[in-house]
Amino acid sequence: VRLAEIAAALGLALEGDGGLEIEGLGGLDDAGPRDLSFAAGARYRRAFERSRAGAYLLPPGFDAAGRACLRTPRPYADFARAIDLFAPPPPPAEIGVHATAVVAPDARLGRDVSVRAFAVIGAGASVGDRTVLHPHVTLYPGVSIGADCVIHSGAHLREGTRLGDRAVVQNGAVLGSDGFGHVVGADGRRVTLPHRCPVEAGDDVEIGANCAIDASHHGQGKDEAGVTRTRLGDGVKIDNLVQVGHGCAVGEGSTLCAQVGLGGSTTVGRNTLFAGQSASAGHVRIGDGALVGARAAVHDDLEGGAQVLGVPALDRRVWARFVASRARLPGLLRRVRAIERRLGIGSEEGSD
Amino acid sequence: VRLAEIAAALGLALEGDGGLEIEGLGGLDDAGPRDLSFAAGARYRRAFERSRAGAYLLPPGFDAAGRACLRTPRPYADFARAIDLFAPPPPPAEIGVHATAVVAPDARLGRDVSVRAFAVIGAGASVGDRTVLHPHVTLYPGVSIGADCVIHSGAHLREGTRLGDRAVVQNGAVLGSDGFGHVVGADGRRVTLPHRCPVEAGDDVEIGANCAIDASHHGQGKDEAGVTRTRLGDGVKIDNLVQVGHGCAVGEGSTLCAQVGLGGSTTVGRNTLFAGQSASAGHVRIGDGALVGARAAVHDDLEGGAQVLGVPALDRRVWARFVASRARLPGLLRRVRAIERRLGIGSEEGSD
Amino acid sequence: VRLAEIAAALGLALEGDGGLEIEGLGGLDDAGPRDLSFAAGARYRRAFERSRAGAYLLPPGFDAAGRACLRTPRPYADFARAIDLFAPPPPPAEIGVHATAVVAPDARLGRDVSVRAFAVIGAGASVGDRTVLHPHVTLYPGVSIGADCVIHSGAHLREGTRLGDRAVVQNGAVLGSDGFGHVVGADGRRVTLPHRCPVEAGDDVEIGANCAIDASHHGQGKDEAGVTRTRLGDGVKIDNLVQVGHGCAVGEGSTLCAQVGLGGSTTVGRNTLFAGQSASAGHVRIGDGALVGARAAVHDDLEGGAQVLGVPALDRRVWARFVASRARLPGLLRRVRAIERRLGIGSEEGSD
Repeated sequence: VRLAEIAAALGLALEGDGGLEIEGLGGLDDAGPRDLSFAAGARYRRAFERSRAGAYLLPPGFDAAGRACLRTPRPYADFARAIDLFAPPPPPAEIGVHATAVVAPDARLGRDVSVRAFAVIGAGASVGDRTVLHPHVTLYPGVSIGADCVIHSGAHLREGTRLGDRAVVQNGAVLGSDGFGHVVGADGRRVTLPHRCPVEAGDDVEIGANCAIDASHHGQGKDEAGVTRTRLGDGVKIDNLVQVGHGCAVGEGSTLCAQVGLGGSTTVGRNTLFAGQSASAGHVRIGDGALVGARAAVHDDLEGGAQVLGVPALDRRVWARFVASRARLPGLLRRVRAIERRLGIGSEEGSD
Repeated sequence: VRLAEIAAALGLALEGDGGLEIEGLGGLDDAGPRDLSFAAGARYRRAFERSRAGAYLLPPGFDAAGRACLRTPRPYADFARAIDLFAPPPPPAEIGVHATAVVAPDARLGRDVSVRAFAVIGAGASVGDRTVLHPHVTLYPGVSIGADCVIHSGAHLREGTRLGDRAVVQNGAVLGSDGFGHVVGADGRRVTLPHRCPVEAGDDVEIGANCAIDASHHGQGKDEAGVTRTRLGDGVKIDNLVQVGHGCAVGEGSTLCAQVGLGGSTTVGRNTLFAGQSASAGHVRIGDGALVGARAAVHDDLEGGAQVLGVPALDRRVWARFVASRARLPGLLRRVRAIERRLGIGSEEGSD
Repeated sequence: VRLAEIAAALGLALEGDGGLEIEGLGGLDDAGPRDLSFAAGARYRRAFERSRAGAYLLPPGFDAAGRACLRTPRPYADFARAIDLFAPPPPPAEIGVHATAVVAPDARLGRDVSVRAFAVIGAGASVGDRTVLHPHVTLYPGVSIGADCVIHSGAHLREGTRLGDRAVVQNGAVLGSDGFGHVVGADGRRVTLPHRCPVEAGDDVEIGANCAIDASHHGQGKDEAGVTRTRLGDGVKIDNLVQVGHGCAVGEGSTLCAQVGLGGSTTVGRNTLFAGQSASAGHVRIGDGALVGARAAVHDDLEGGAQVLGVPALDRRVWARFVASRARLPGLLRRVRAIERRLGIGSEEGSD
């Protein structure tokens, strides 16, 4: 594709040789002379200078040093758009219901849905317009999915789960599994609490591969409408292998990275980030915009905007200072013992 | 439902206005004037006083302060029973074998089983009375499942897995996946150890969504009967995304919370609790009633009743004192350096 | 089976009574008088002496103390081979394509493949000779699988995934799920980066149950051939519930134990080991032969052969010294305060 054509397709201003043939895409470090790359801002200056790409998406004011470029205030977002020019999306799933799918007579299917092989749609379920159910998807009775969703193969949506529009659910994800709660009953044996309050997710939600998002029970928190459920707000993005316990509420625009675990009844604000393998205990409130760092574990409520690390989690700067000094603890013990000897103080730890 | 009817249905003594109309259920903080709530004991006194519920399940001796209540020694367990009155269980799965299921000719099915769409039952497998296999369940050859079990969609039970009665397996769980073990062979390449000793679980076992419970190999521990297998005792409850390595034995009544990992050949006693994201290394013995706290990692044997936290795990009180003091370590380094200067001691750490 | 027959079957030299009847196998601690066991080297001397096995696989030079044994330089590897004599492998899957499988007209199937019930093979996919697809396996369009592979039930291989020969994929594993990446677009909303660079795995790769191995996007690292993909080298072994982020490259012979998580664009060398629940942040380079200990989290590049533990990871010896001293930190605070009092130094921490 000639660079001028790319500029036209993306609607961007071209600087330099529009006749340049571009064959692919690449990050600054990896792109070759036939690739289009991008620099998102000034901190990529050195990588840009080292880069061997043929052309670049650059923000206004970024010195192109004479190289061919397309100008855009959002180089990364337009790089994402450029992907369609070089690696077109897979052909759309065939419209219609595959002959092998099992669809309950009272299920409601929107227009132009695609229901692939061995999909199961339970009684009373509904699927919005243009939504795709890949092979082996199971919708239990009463599930409701909006329009323009993609549910990948092997995903399971349990009784009454509700998904908004434009959701993407990766393979093997489970929404609405029974929450984990037991009570000791009259005979001293554990009774399993029935979890009959389904999961409800807003629009533009993404759920990663092999996640588990639990349903909740009637003793858990109600939302503004007085209804108990596990809630994922609009635009919540969840990576793979994440556990969301019963009765959690995750606010709009929040992000849970891979292998995160939220204990039951956790309330997470808007636009928060849980980095990889981080966690919160149950019944914790996390404020808007909080950042829970990789592997951190939150045991107490966090204010909006808090940034924490460690187990249990601390302010990230306090944690950083602790981490920077921890290797010196053994030497410190020896130094204090030497001081005590000098002062004739017997150590309070006999075996020192 | 009138409160008097609820009292009758649960077989509990009523105090207050039996004519009160109750429409739902809720925890103390969330219940409204038309909800039934519960207080499990004296430590919920303040929450009870703040609560706006219409009626309560209360233990004997808990001052009802004039509010309508039902008396029970087990408020939470009876709250669980009350759920059936307001949110009845989903209709039972249809009895019979769905036309699309693939059942081996020599498989044995008990009375009133429900085998739903696309279930696969391998050669020689058996399924007990009234057990439900939801869509897309796969039973490999030789699997044996007891009576009154529920196996949710997309669960996979590998060769020879045995489950007792009343088991519940959530969606996507895998029982009997090949254990992870390799040996360097004659040509210097790794050979995979065959894992042909299946998983055996007792009665009343629950397995969470997307768990992985591995089969074991013949070099691993035998049980009292001299048989090698991965064992889950009666009443073991396992939450989502848990890994149980090859050859583990988990004792009766033990609980593994979400994202726990047990290394191979771990022996866990009865009535233990592994909290969320905790773990044990392989070949470790954990005594009865031990409590492994959230995110703790056990590397050595634990005595019965031990309560541990941290990585590697410590007694929980020792861990708590360490945690409370860790943020002061950087300041302590400065203070000791000041003392050394005062005493004219050169620091042993040159760059201090 | 008589011991002499075992010796003949394994091609090993016999010492002692070849007429001994052996009925099973067991580790040193568990084997009984009718079992064959093994001792891999001198450090098992004491366990050997306690052992009650009927016969042993022993390395040259290991004193058999008069007990019956078979000599081999690789006792454990030959024990693995002996398993076939006592617990034969499950009968091979039936050759052919099950009547219920859905195979695209243009898919290419090798000789003697086994495609079981409800398997789905997408357009343009290819399956090598003798490969087995268990029930409910989904191959999206363009997937390519080599010869002699076993893909267990419920595994999902996304668009264009490539697997070499002799791969084993456990149940529920997902290869090629969409990578996790979002960019803020022109309207201030998050746009999902298209991930169209598939996963490519070499020969002899194993993937555990319910793993998630993500596809990558065009801004991520290219391999020597200038192609962007998530790569697993020959002989890579991955245990259950592991997350491999978009654009990772894992070198030949490396091992990822259960619940490991690799952040996006991580480059892992050859013959490395990530122990259980360990992790690396994204964009990190791990050298050949590195050992990342259980629960460690790597945030910076690691040299070849490095051995680390802790969060963030430290040299394992430094970590061990820190761990051994951490419980003494609270006492140390008191001791330093006592010294300060003795010297008339006001503590810099007012509330001390």
